[in-house]
Amino acid sequence: MTACPARPSVGRPARPRSPTKRAARLGSRDVILDAATTLFLRNGYLGTSMDDIAARAGVSKQTVYTHFADKEQLFTDLVLGNIERVEAFVQTMTRLLEDTTDLEGDLRELARRYVSVVIQPQVVQLRRLVIGEAGRFPDLARTYYERVPARTTATLAAQLQRLADRGLLRLEDPHLAAGQLAWLILAVPLDVALLCGDSASLPAAERERLADAAVRVFLAAYGRG
Amino acid sequence: MTACPARPSVGRPARPRSPTKRAARLGSRDVILDAATTLFLRNGYLGTSMDDIAARAGVSKQTVYTHFADKEQLFTDLVLGNIERVEAFVQTMTRLLEDTTDLEGDLRELARRYVSVVIQPQVVQLRRLVIGEAGRFPDLARTYYERVPARTTATLAAQLQRLADRGLLRLEDPHLAAGQLAWLILAVPLDVALLCGDSASLPAAERERLADAAVRVFLAAYGRG
Repeated sequence: MTACPARPSVGRPARPRSPTKRAARLGSRDVILDAATTLFLRNGYLGTSMDDIAARAGVSKQTVYTHFADKEQLFTDLVLGNIERVEAFVQTMTRLLEDTTDLEGDLRELARRYVSVVIQPQVVQLRRLVIGEAGRFPDLARTYYERVPARTTATLAAQLQRLADRGLLRLEDPHLAAGQLAWLILAVPLDVALLCGDSASLPAAERERLADAAVRVFLAAYGRG
Repeated sequence: MTACPARPSVGRPARPRSPTKRAARLGSRDVILDAATTLFLRNGYLGTSMDDIAARAGVSKQTVYTHFADKEQLFTDLVLGNIERVEAFVQTMTRLLEDTTDLEGDLRELARRYVSVVIQPQVVQLRRLVIGEAGRFPDLARTYYERVPARTTATLAAQLQRLADRGLLRLEDPHLAAGQLAWLILAVPLDVALLCGDSASLPAAERERLADAAVRVFLAAYGRG
């Protein structure tokens, strides 16, 4: 693809306008995190105050401070909030692969789910924030790296080793192979999401084509057959 | 790799301290762009003023405005400055592949050069800026996408098609294959550079191992061997 995918011509449904209603639905902590994400991405970390966050979330500044000691704590919690999603996905990955009887089919299923998780707007926005603020928060960026992409790859590596032990793959370095599989699946859709904007993500059919092609290349290199 | 690579224990040589000397060496436009990159990454676009940039570059504000009409223009020029590097690399890529008589060797050479170009600190910093500011400058991010990664992949696709026409590769979708090869080569080192910080990049030997492994996987899928 030499151009960003076109933006959809039909607008997406507008977000609920009332922060108060959102607070009732989501709980004030999530509404604050949501508001903070929007503002950090729009105005940067330094350009965003706790007052701004409270105003956008539709809560009092005191409520913000009930949940977060200060702006840095809020930012840290926001970034590390991704970790719950990682744990859920890591379990899915393990369940799909550990006793597979249809390796190619289950790798395809894994690839489709993997890309769906990673290009969720919230995940992309967090990644964008962490990358953009890595100069100011190097330790946080390293922690994110270790607990999000590296944790996922390590789990995938363990599963690939298990598949090799069962005689279903032929590989010497499961960690290398896991990184290759992960990025064959994720890199193109993620690059588009990071650079072309949330409203311009690849169509589902294109994502599935890429996911299937990733598995095909991986199995050509590491399959038994 | 489940943790960021260790930071080198020996400090890198300090940058020249005097902006005036740098201006004499580099020309004031480059010094201004360099100062702006540092400040945008540290304080965000909104948190950086033309005054700040002039002060850090060691030039007058008037000099800044001689080169750039306003802050937005400066930011745009900074980001699109990557394009010259892309053109140079695209020519290298074409030269390496178009008449190759040693496909595996030349792909390995290409892979090593490709990763060296992309993980240069200046390139990583620009990518970080574009990703971080994609919400504020969506059109600029899209232009960057189209002229930097997508332009490189398109050139690679044309070369792969040429290799297929010569009977050296077996592929149906050269663009798909080019994206896969590019990200097999780049994704792990780039992810480390973006998230683990400039001073923690992978050792050269590890980068070369990854580059060789990328070529091995690619040829397993698309080679004729």
